Amino acid sequence: MTEAEFLDRLCALPLHPGAHALADDTATLAGLTITSDTLVEGVHFLPADPPGDVAWKLVATNLSDLAAKGALIEGILLNHPLTDQHWDAAFLDGLAEALAAFACPLIGGDTVSLPAGAPRVLTVTAFGRDAAAPRRSGARPGDALWVTGTIGDAAAGLAIAQGAAGPAALLARYRRPLPRLSEGRALAPHVHAMMDVSDGLLIDAARMAAASGLAVAIDLAAVPLSAELAAWRPDRLAAATAGDDYELLFAAPDGWMPPVAATCIGSFAAGQGLSLTEDGRPVALPARLGWQHG
Amino acid sequence: MTEAEFLDRLCALPLHPGAHALADDTATLAGLTITSDTLVEGVHFLPADPPGDVAWKLVATNLSDLAAKGALIEGILLNHPLTDQHWDAAFLDGLAEALAAFACPLIGGDTVSLPAGAPRVLTVTAFGRDAAAPRRSGARPGDALWVTGTIGDAAAGLAIAQGAAGPAALLARYRRPLPRLSEGRALAPHVHAMMDVSDGLLIDAARMAAASGLAVAIDLAAVPLSAELAAWRPDRLAAATAGDDYELLFAAPDGWMPPVAATCIGSFAAGQGLSLTEDGRPVALPARLGWQHG
Repeated sequence: MTEAEFLDRLCALPLHPGAHALADDTATLAGLTITSDTLVEGVHFLPADPPGDVAWKLVATNLSDLAAKGALIEGILLNHPLTDQHWDAAFLDGLAEALAAFACPLIGGDTVSLPAGAPRVLTVTAFGRDAAAPRRSGARPGDALWVTGTIGDAAAGLAIAQGAAGPAALLARYRRPLPRLSEGRALAPHVHAMMDVSDGLLIDAARMAAASGLAVAIDLAAVPLSAELAAWRPDRLAAATAGDDYELLFAAPDGWMPPVAATCIGSFAAGQGLSLTEDGRPVALPARLGWQHG
Repeated sequence: MTEAEFLDRLCALPLHPGAHALADDTATLAGLTITSDTLVEGVHFLPADPPGDVAWKLVATNLSDLAAKGALIEGILLNHPLTDQHWDAAFLDGLAEALAAFACPLIGGDTVSLPAGAPRVLTVTAFGRDAAAPRRSGARPGDALWVTGTIGDAAAGLAIAQGAAGPAALLARYRRPLPRLSEGRALAPHVHAMMDVSDGLLIDAARMAAASGLAVAIDLAAVPLSAELAAWRPDRLAAATAGDDYELLFAAPDGWMPPVAATCIGSFAAGQGLSLTEDGRPVALPARLGWQHG
C-alpha cells in the first residue's frame, strides 16, 4: 500500500483533535508541537554513512519540522537499535554534537535489539513549544511562494557520498543538514503557510498548494542554487525534485518581504496543481516531483 | 554495547528535567506522561504472528507504561514501515480494534519504506495525562511488593505460538495483552512505587529495588499463576523470569490493602539485591532473571 493509501486508512481511525486530521507535519498536544521521523538504513541513509552523521541527520530532520512551525526546542525521544559497539559509540558522539548544536536535551526513548544483519531503523520524536505554527494549508490566492537557502545541495551530496567526485560542502549538506530554527522562529508569526522541504521542492510545493486548495506556479529559473552546486551540476529541475534540503518553504502576501534570507520562487492562485515556467516559458512537469514512500 | 552501557552513555548527554535522569519508564513534559516502545519483528514478535495482534501489542505495551503511572490516555503516535498490502491492511484492522478498546485516539506519526526483506520495526509513542505518576524508585524499607493478575501466561502463549500445544487463553495473553489501565489509575495515588512487568517479574522487581536503593525478597510460592498456566506447566521460576506479562508491580506500606485484585509476593528491606524463597526455604537465583536487550 502506498503512503497516501495508508494515510487515508489512518484518517478513518479515531483521531485526536491535535492530529489536525493527519494533514499537517506536526501534531499539537498540551501546548506542545510534536513530530516524529524514522530513518531507515538503505532508505534514508547509506550503510556506509558515518554513524555520527546519521545521528545528526536524525535529530536535524525532526527539528526541521519544528522549525517550520516556529517552535522553540523542548527536547527529543530516541528509539535506538543496539547493534555493534563501534557504530553505536560513533552514533552517540554525533548525537552529542547535534544535541549541543541545537540546544536540544534528551527526554527519553527506547533501546531494542535487532536480528543479525537487519537494517537499522531509528526514530526520533521531537517536542517544541511556543509555536506560532503556520499550517501547510494556509496559503491564499495571490500569495508569493518563498524558500530559504539553496536547493539541491543534499542530493548532490548523496551522489558524492555514493562515489561521485564533488566538493565537501555539498557532502556536508547531505550528511549534516541544518534545520532553519531561527528563520522559522522569525517567519512563523507572519506567513500564511509554511513547511520544510524534505521530499523535494516541487512535490512539497505541490502538497502545500493541494492542502491550501490552490494552484501554484514556480519559476524554475528562480530556484536558488548554491555556488557549489552551480559549479558542480547546474540542473535546476534535478535540484527541485531531489530531497533532503530541509529548507523552509512558505507562502506570504505578495509584496511582503521576509525578515530572513529567502528567495521568491513562485505564486499561488485559484485552481489546482503545480505549473512550472523558466524565464516565462512553460516547462513540462517531470514524471517524478520528488520522493514518495511505499 | 549492552542496553545498560548505552543508557549510561545517554545519561552523559544533556538531559531534560522531564527525563528523570532516564531512570524511569516514562518522561514528563507539559503535564503529559510520555513513553515510547519499539517492537522488532523476530525480537518482540514472530514473523508469523497475525499483524492485527502485532498492532494490538504495540499499542498495549505502550499503554501499560502509562497504566503504571495511573495516567488517563491522551493518544499515540505511530511510526510504521510500509511493507506488503495484506500485512499492512491486517495491521490497520488490529490497530483500529486496539484504539477502540482503549479509547485511544491517533495523534500522528510517520510512515517509511523498508529495504526488501528487512524485519519490520514499529514504534508507538503514547501520551497520558493527569498521572499521579509513582516512580519505580519510591519503594521504602518494610513495603510489601504486590503484583496484579497472573504471571507467566504470555511466555506460555509464546511457546504455543511457536508450535507447542496449549490453551487459547494463554496464546491470547501473549498476542493481545491488556494494559492494567483502571488498576493503575486506582493504585497510583496510593502506592510508593509502581512499574509494569514487561521483561520478567524477577528482573523488574530487582530493578525496582535497585532504583529504590533497597533489597527485595520474593516468595516464589506466592507468585500468582493462572489456572490455565497451572494446568499447562506449573513452573513458578520459569513464569517469574519470562517476559510480556504487562501486569503492575507495586510497593505499598505493609498492611495496606490495594483497591484492586492483586497478590502480595514479597517485601522490601534495607540492603540491596534480590533474594528468593519458596515457602520459607531459600531458592538460588536463576542465571537469567528476565529479558535484557543488547
